[in-house]
Amino acid sequence: MAKSPSIPKGTRDFSPTEMRKRSYVFSKIREAFEKYGFEEISTPAMENIDTLTGKYGDEGDQLIFKVINSGDYLSKASIDSSTTSKSLSNQISEKALRYDLTIPFARYVVQNRNDITFPFRRCQIQNVWRADRPQKGRFREFYQCDADIIGTDSLIAEIELIQLYDDVFESLGLKNITVKVNNRKILSGLTEVIGESDKFREITIALDKLDKIGVDKVKIELLAKGISQEALQKLDFIFSMEGQAIEKLNQLKAVLVDSKVGSEGINELSYIIENLGDLGTKVVNLDFDVTLARGLDYYTGAIIEVISDDVQIGSIGGGGRYDDLTANFGLSGISGVGVSFGFDRICIALEELSLFPQNTSQNPELLFVNFGDKESKYCLKLLKQLRDEGIKSELYPKADKLKKQMQYANKKGFKKVVLVGESELKSKILTVKNMFDGSQKNMTFEELKTLKIKKL
Amino acid sequence: MAKSPSIPKGTRDFSPTEMRKRSYVFSKIREAFEKYGFEEISTPAMENIDTLTGKYGDEGDQLIFKVINSGDYLSKASIDSSTTSKSLSNQISEKALRYDLTIPFARYVVQNRNDITFPFRRCQIQNVWRADRPQKGRFREFYQCDADIIGTDSLIAEIELIQLYDDVFESLGLKNITVKVNNRKILSGLTEVIGESDKFREITIALDKLDKIGVDKVKIELLAKGISQEALQKLDFIFSMEGQAIEKLNQLKAVLVDSKVGSEGINELSYIIENLGDLGTKVVNLDFDVTLARGLDYYTGAIIEVISDDVQIGSIGGGGRYDDLTANFGLSGISGVGVSFGFDRICIALEELSLFPQNTSQNPELLFVNFGDKESKYCLKLLKQLRDEGIKSELYPKADKLKKQMQYANKKGFKKVVLVGESELKSKILTVKNMFDGSQKNMTFEELKTLKIKKL
Repeated sequence: MAKSPSIPKGTRDFSPTEMRKRSYVFSKIREAFEKYGFEEISTPAMENIDTLTGKYGDEGDQLIFKVINSGDYLSKASIDSSTTSKSLSNQISEKALRYDLTIPFARYVVQNRNDITFPFRRCQIQNVWRADRPQKGRFREFYQCDADIIGTDSLIAEIELIQLYDDVFESLGLKNITVKVNNRKILSGLTEVIGESDKFREITIALDKLDKIGVDKVKIELLAKGISQEALQKLDFIFSMEGQAIEKLNQLKAVLVDSKVGSEGINELSYIIENLGDLGTKVVNLDFDVTLARGLDYYTGAIIEVISDDVQIGSIGGGGRYDDLTANFGLSGISGVGVSFGFDRICIALEELSLFPQNTSQNPELLFVNFGDKESKYCLKLLKQLRDEGIKSELYPKADKLKKQMQYANKKGFKKVVLVGESELKSKILTVKNMFDGSQKNMTFEELKTLKIKKL
Repeated sequence: MAKSPSIPKGTRDFSPTEMRKRSYVFSKIREAFEKYGFEEISTPAMENIDTLTGKYGDEGDQLIFKVINSGDYLSKASIDSSTTSKSLSNQISEKALRYDLTIPFARYVVQNRNDITFPFRRCQIQNVWRADRPQKGRFREFYQCDADIIGTDSLIAEIELIQLYDDVFESLGLKNITVKVNNRKILSGLTEVIGESDKFREITIALDKLDKIGVDKVKIELLAKGISQEALQKLDFIFSMEGQAIEKLNQLKAVLVDSKVGSEGINELSYIIENLGDLGTKVVNLDFDVTLARGLDYYTGAIIEVISDDVQIGSIGGGGRYDDLTANFGLSGISGVGVSFGFDRICIALEELSLFPQNTSQNPELLFVNFGDKESKYCLKLLKQLRDEGIKSELYPKADKLKKQMQYANKKGFKKVVLVGESELKSKILTVKNMFDGSQKNMTFEELKTLKIKKL
């Protein structure tokens, strides 16, 4: 039995210290979500497999964790020499762990459409699971914090979501955040003008790898996918565009002048960029990146990706507009746009930049030292009164050596230690030790309660 | 594609209204945990299967959700006619969803023993999964809120945990909470004095079913498990004990006078009950129930179960002392005791008893009506200033009919609606409608900001 324990790779435990930091980040994100009128929902960890598959591209599908059916599942499966892992999974697994929060949200919207007031501003803060290869900043279980506005095609939604990024990152003390924007319609227009409209999907998939594999390999992949040499030459300028967002937009506007969808994309993005320019941003630097593609199939309009210029951790957020995501579940014509905060990477960034506040929580107030049964019975009564008043306090559970008890007080950061020994029990005068300066004072319990003690 | 969506049975979505209620309960529990000095940790949803199996009894093991290995897992499995569901699972699954929070906690303690200051007061608020048959109050995904004190055998821990129940339930407005207590050592003593020491496990498993199947069937099961008719007769009195906890304890004390372990159990429980009697409880009624057994193998001392007398929902909490849970993971001699709050059932109880406060959250403050592009650009600027001051406000994203926008304001509960049309844009005088009494006032933006507006 006694083997040394471990946890699955790519997953993590969080200690109290880490949890306090995480709670701090959660609370900042929640506060901003609330300020912007987002209402929180939650969905189950497990979804029916057909809810998830086919929404994240082939690569995504392979990263979904599947759960084995309960009971004697094998009796309902038929296995022969032609059975593959995939075909077996289809027979023995009906449920899977959610891969993101967007698809469960779309499913939720369709299922609850009669109870929802549109436009629906929903937020959702839950973990997701991906069978990805673990590496720095990439985990198999991690949190997403999503905010979506569904039921309107108004571009004000995009503007607000970028402001939301600005607010959250500013509140966390981050500076130099680049929000890259693009529009799937611009990419669509580009494939049109280079004469490769039918290769839209292949082109976005290849472009999405730009950060990972570099320009040359993207070009090789494009050629391999059947893009002509001529088309590639026409496309080449996008890899070397420079200047301000508006300048780049104007450049592309000229290229896309004959493409209806492309021009639409230019207009949408111009509207967003101009308005955000007028409104101003605090820590966000908006950049137009025409090579930004994002791998997810469901985006149809604006696409967004966020990086911190001050730390090498990859994308710390992203999102985009989806015109018909709910159609997957039988409800058409509901446009929405959403962004996600990459919670775990944001935590890593804050850690690396030393941006966590010194005290992410309040120190506990009082520890009663335990001198034995009679004394501790008395202390339990005092303790009860303190806790009833919301004061974070403890009694050390056993009459261990004083040194050990004081070590406990020190490590846990108690502000004061209260000593109630035999003489204190008689005199009803407590000895109170200040743990910051080591000073001691004698006082009654009533006096102790009137000290400046923080309540919850 | 377009089939109507659903979620796995026994799992649930939560709407914003439900989430606000759940947040309210979480915050009450967290507040009490903090007051008592518990520090929060979290562990991964998936654990290695061997961490979980063998800890919850045979029935428990069958209810664990297993996750299929990633990649081409079948190529590593060998399947023939003798393969069963169980043996296949062993080959194709290494990870499983956590079944409770106690075993992951024990695993955590062993893995992090060098960084932990004992006695360690940890709390953990996370969901767990069980492939149980869903019914009222029983789900396949649900939350547990656990508080444990590990690294001490002091009975003060038991006393504090029952006080914790008292505090949490009182803060939620519940009354008439029965906390049933027993001690495994008493059960052990009983098996001794009836001459069936070697059947301890069978007896606890049978007793644990008392609530579900009744006395007669428990007796039948005991006989079927090989307990003698004579032993059963000696045991019979425990099914009809009546009176105050202390009275029942005294009765049993006499029965167990010759059993060392039994007497130990009596002494422990007396200490807890007497002290809690001295300290007093607010809504908790402490009861000694010698038939309380609890199915989990790892309990060795006190066992606790909580029910609300006012609502038929079964147990809303439970716990107990485990003397050597960490030995499973290679670390012996660390005694601990913990309790769990059955979060989802507590929510059901509060709902049935109408104990949720009317407003579990603050209404949003201001909605700007959208009269078109020019007006909304202006409103976006005002909106930004309001949000920068922490005021929960929105701009309706599109120039829909006023009626529709007002409906949105109503449904979402905005306190005020701000109308900025063409004339307001020129005059810089806003029209502000109070949504509670329907009154309208004209004012400048500066005046609007000085209104009594709640900030986050």
